[in-house]
Amino acid sequence: MIASEGSWPRALSALAPADARLALSIHRFVTRELRVDWRGAGLVVALSGGLDSTALLVVLSALRERLDFSLTAAHLDHGLRPESGQDAEAARELCRRLDVPFQLRRLDMANHGTGRGLEDAGRRARYAFLDEVRQDVGARWIVTAHHVGDLAEDILLRLIRGASWPGLGGMSGMAAPCGLRGADGEGRVLRPLLLVEKARLRALLERQGIPWREDASNGQRNFRRNRVRLDVLPLLLAENSDLYDVARSLWRVARADETYWRALVFPVLEFVPEGILLGRNALAGLPRSARLRAYVEALTRLGRGQARSSTIFALDEAWEQHRYGRRFQFSGGACAALDSRGILFCFSTDEAALCAKEGGAAGKRKGNGRD
Amino acid sequence: MIASEGSWPRALSALAPADARLALSIHRFVTRELRVDWRGAGLVVALSGGLDSTALLVVLSALRERLDFSLTAAHLDHGLRPESGQDAEAARELCRRLDVPFQLRRLDMANHGTGRGLEDAGRRARYAFLDEVRQDVGARWIVTAHHVGDLAEDILLRLIRGASWPGLGGMSGMAAPCGLRGADGEGRVLRPLLLVEKARLRALLERQGIPWREDASNGQRNFRRNRVRLDVLPLLLAENSDLYDVARSLWRVARADETYWRALVFPVLEFVPEGILLGRNALAGLPRSARLRAYVEALTRLGRGQARSSTIFALDEAWEQHRYGRRFQFSGGACAALDSRGILFCFSTDEAALCAKEGGAAGKRKGNGRD
Repeated sequence: MIASEGSWPRALSALAPADARLALSIHRFVTRELRVDWRGAGLVVALSGGLDSTALLVVLSALRERLDFSLTAAHLDHGLRPESGQDAEAARELCRRLDVPFQLRRLDMANHGTGRGLEDAGRRARYAFLDEVRQDVGARWIVTAHHVGDLAEDILLRLIRGASWPGLGGMSGMAAPCGLRGADGEGRVLRPLLLVEKARLRALLERQGIPWREDASNGQRNFRRNRVRLDVLPLLLAENSDLYDVARSLWRVARADETYWRALVFPVLEFVPEGILLGRNALAGLPRSARLRAYVEALTRLGRGQARSSTIFALDEAWEQHRYGRRFQFSGGACAALDSRGILFCFSTDEAALCAKEGGAAGKRKGNGRD
Repeated sequence: MIASEGSWPRALSALAPADARLALSIHRFVTRELRVDWRGAGLVVALSGGLDSTALLVVLSALRERLDFSLTAAHLDHGLRPESGQDAEAARELCRRLDVPFQLRRLDMANHGTGRGLEDAGRRARYAFLDEVRQDVGARWIVTAHHVGDLAEDILLRLIRGASWPGLGGMSGMAAPCGLRGADGEGRVLRPLLLVEKARLRALLERQGIPWREDASNGQRNFRRNRVRLDVLPLLLAENSDLYDVARSLWRVARADETYWRALVFPVLEFVPEGILLGRNALAGLPRSARLRAYVEALTRLGRGQARSSTIFALDEAWEQHRYGRRFQFSGGACAALDSRGILFCFSTDEAALCAKEGGAAGKRKGNGRD
């Protein structure tokens, strides 16, 4: 069923009542749970033209009048699939009928390898393009169509990779992936559909008679993400049909905990010329739970590599036992050195070589590299 | 390979060096991580005669001399499988050759239904028997053979059921399942192998030439636990061969967080004649993360039923907005009522009926009941 030309919804009143309620619940989620006031905001919608992003654009288009958005849709043609030109044209047509400005870029990603390397390169290219458009049109937010199915998938991917808590609770609703932070230090990416089920999005498009494009590569098992979605998630859903509620609750508790631990941990990170210092007195005031997170945060700020958990626990044990002089090496050359001032996290090749010689536990990357 | 009569290890020196190191690392885990001093303790070992519990008994038997344990093995024959009588005889023979006192009970569980009902009844009967033996011989601990494979399985089962954090980090190493708390309020069940891989246990038994019994029912998919072990875990292990390290780290962070939240939350629970009160001033001093856990703890203490997470979040929102007079109903008839004193958690049929009429969000059980 295809609606007649020009009839696609540009206001809440043009939606079926259930879909209008969905749109309003999405607005409530953004304002109350993400605590973002997006009224009057400039929004750049990442539009692949698949089910999720098409529904996102329709919802935002319907909310436009009430919330005074200025919308732009941005479509990146990775040039990886023969039908990608048709996808771009369908996205352009959708935007024409919703009266949303459309920006397109064509890339040739075909020589970026396969598997995880290609996935990472594609994501970086996509966000770089989206942020360019955002700056061009003077918008505040890049908006993506991640929904609760993506959230559940993300939780499982994080479990597999060995994320700790609260990271295990899944992606943020307002985030700064690929370094996209504003001058205010805040994230630039908003995910208003994060707790919505895909089935609700499909119902909306079907009721409105709005078509979408299917991406055949979603069915391929060469990406870990696809294997988790196609093979693992269905087994868990067969055990508990309320699994998406489980994901929502975990996500909510994780957000509360993230806020809490940040407030406790961030103030104790001291930026010194040699690196990041956790001072003795600051550490003495922290419970073990916060110390473990302070170590991970310091290593994250130093950059490169994932901290091996067993080394984090060994470091904390050494700290509890006042083993001044002990050093621990992490992946990528980062080092933690204990002395009477506290714990210094630093990062230099010399330092790393020294640590390696002194036999600090070596870090290594998780995962078996199939991606 | 069966070792000759009488040669099974009763001291560390009788083990291969790798197995002696394993036994000592298990002792370190109990003393340093579970913070239990089990030297000189009376231990009742839950002995099914399978690989895990056979290895547990051998390890404890080898540590006996050094740590001065008094060991008793307890075997419950559920009478569910034709070979269960042979299992009992094999367990008795193992104990004879390790010089460990053996206690046996036969039950007829065949009329306890199937699936989850049977699993629950079996577990209750098992722990009741183990605790009887424990009291008979004047022992402090029931010791079970759960290993890191069981822990990973437990984390997935908790994820499926919708456990929050830190519960999602898996079973405790020292616990009180089925109400087995001592007069001191402490747990009675110890799990010394919780971070050990089954492959290490198998290697120990093979090196010593000690046989074990296979339980064919472990391969049946009528229990959720078995489906998770047989179908879900292998998919995750294929993505990350270090998945057991992931489970160990999650477990360790969960233990630190559990200690932390308990210290914050337990003192604010006020036991009053009508139920459990979270006083207004106490609540005002708690961050949102701690409030959410305080609600769950209050409901857990009231007993019966699992708190539906969405109701917990709605309750906290109402508290933040000072909606005095609001009531929320949870499964099993428990109720939370907001007034200017704070939040009262109570539990009565009348109260439940009142709540239901006033339209508080109703709780329901998770899962699709296949178990």
